[in-house]
Amino acid sequence: MATSRLTAAAGQFRPVSLRRRGLVLERAILESALEQLSTVGWNALTMEGVAAGAQTGKAAVYRRWPSKEDLVADALRAGLPDLDEAPDRGGIREDLYELCRQVRAAMYSKPGFALRSVLYECDSGAAERFHGVIVQQVIEPSTRLFREVVRRGMERGDVRPDATSELVFDVIPGLMMYRSKVCGSEWTDEELAEMIDRIMVPLLRPVAG
Amino acid sequence: MATSRLTAAAGQFRPVSLRRRGLVLERAILESALEQLSTVGWNALTMEGVAAGAQTGKAAVYRRWPSKEDLVADALRAGLPDLDEAPDRGGIREDLYELCRQVRAAMYSKPGFALRSVLYECDSGAAERFHGVIVQQVIEPSTRLFREVVRRGMERGDVRPDATSELVFDVIPGLMMYRSKVCGSEWTDEELAEMIDRIMVPLLRPVAG
Repeated sequence: MATSRLTAAAGQFRPVSLRRRGLVLERAILESALEQLSTVGWNALTMEGVAAGAQTGKAAVYRRWPSKEDLVADALRAGLPDLDEAPDRGGIREDLYELCRQVRAAMYSKPGFALRSVLYECDSGAAERFHGVIVQQVIEPSTRLFREVVRRGMERGDVRPDATSELVFDVIPGLMMYRSKVCGSEWTDEELAEMIDRIMVPLLRPVAG
Repeated sequence: MATSRLTAAAGQFRPVSLRRRGLVLERAILESALEQLSTVGWNALTMEGVAAGAQTGKAAVYRRWPSKEDLVADALRAGLPDLDEAPDRGGIREDLYELCRQVRAAMYSKPGFALRSVLYECDSGAAERFHGVIVQQVIEPSTRLFREVVRRGMERGDVRPDATSELVFDVIPGLMMYRSKVCGSEWTDEELAEMIDRIMVPLLRPVAG
């Protein structure tokens, strides 16, 4: 039967026959690590499982990453969306909205989910290390962009000139983290718009008179 | 020597000789559970250890709490400070400041620390259960008080009448959670005052003109 022949033929492609090198293999390993994280989780993830998922041998993984902590940190780093360009749409309202959508995309990306599952599951030493990945990959870049957007609003005149407290840049990330943790909010477009119109615009608008 | 005689005498008080009943014994067990949580943590906490700390037998613990999840949930509930009275000092600024100090006291109380260590350490099923304790003991009461304080400000006139979005009441808890998690902030009085003066007052003040 056709099916059995196909199955038999597929059986002949042994992992070892895939001769990929350098970046291609590395990428396959990192993708396999993210896949393992989102299916079996941090505790059950093994270097062998990641190697199998990437159709390579365990040695190829260990050659690049000495431990699963190293591997997972790199997988998260490589997978999280870049947050490197501040929107510039001519108004604080529109810029904040666009930026919030970018932050949400990072939070709810596959690596974003993987990152949070890791933080719940792994022991506190490893959790601290991944906390560093969050700070470098999500917190710092998004704070930089919020700062840029607010600064541009001051120049344009739709942000009050004394909105300079560092806390201003933490209001949106704080609300997003809080509501997502406490209420399980997934931050629909409508909720993002409400946050901007009911919190950020009143907070940032120039004082009349 | 006096010391040795005291030590010898102390050795005669065996745990079994403590005949405490009802609420007194219950309280000793709950306190011992909090103590264990903050010293050995969730994973290493045992019913035997808690019983020993309360100078009672394991059976006395199991008679009241069938599992360590039940015991710890009750210990946290009993230990967390009450948040049940909204400050009323005649101004939104003063009321928010006082309320923030109460929330901080709950966050940084011994049961507050124990609660957070539990959430990091225990598996996700148990973590979800303790999440319920946080919501009932900390989140809901504090939101109720923030709402009360803001409502009184509207009546008095130092809060704009359209500050009615539910998100308004989440700004302070969101910032407190975010900065404490991400920057390890411990929220000094100065930081609380900055949050109120630079974020909450601009957000809530009536629009001039």
